[in-house]
Amino acid sequence: MLVLISYDVNTQDAAGRRRLRLIAKQCVNYGQRVQNSVFECILDAAQCRQLQHKLCSLMDKEKDSLRFYYLGNRYEAKVEHFGINAGYQPEGVLMV
Amino acid sequence: MLVLISYDVNTQDAAGRRRLRLIAKQCVNYGQRVQNSVFECILDAAQCRQLQHKLCSLMDKEKDSLRFYYLGNRYEAKVEHFGINAGYQPEGVLMV
Repeated sequence: MLVLISYDVNTQDAAGRRRLRLIAKQCVNYGQRVQNSVFECILDAAQCRQLQHKLCSLMDKEKDSLRFYYLGNRYEAKVEHFGINAGYQPEGVLMV
Repeated sequence: MLVLISYDVNTQDAAGRRRLRLIAKQCVNYGQRVQNSVFECILDAAQCRQLQHKLCSLMDKEKDSLRFYYLGNRYEAKVEHFGINAGYQPEGVLMV
């Protein structure tokens, strides 16, 4: 299924900037960055729980926000893009 | 239906910072900001086209990125949140 992950990390201090780097680094292992703090990942339920667990352990729940959106398996018609960074297929990227 | 809107605007110059303000201002008219550049909006198809048209006219397609994600009418189980800014209902906010 396509899972959209977006996050806001409070980067007012060095610890926050470190959290941001680590969170992005984890997401890169599971999918494609489509915008600064937005990733699209093709995950099964177990992978999704695993990534959630990792990100939740990295974030500061008092300062940061993390959102998961589940777009299912037939997601092509559920995503529209305008502007730069358009041309990529979530599935295409992961299969290579 | 729930529509998730996320954008990345190039703010390296004053024009970009202005585009960012105007894009956010438009989105606020249609829904709820859930993260810095992420909005959740309850829209019908006509409202969605209208907002897309407005945002596309504001953005610079050579520099900015705008993504629309369609989560349908039964979206409660499709969104998971961790951390701050959790407690809000997209529908609840619009009805007030």
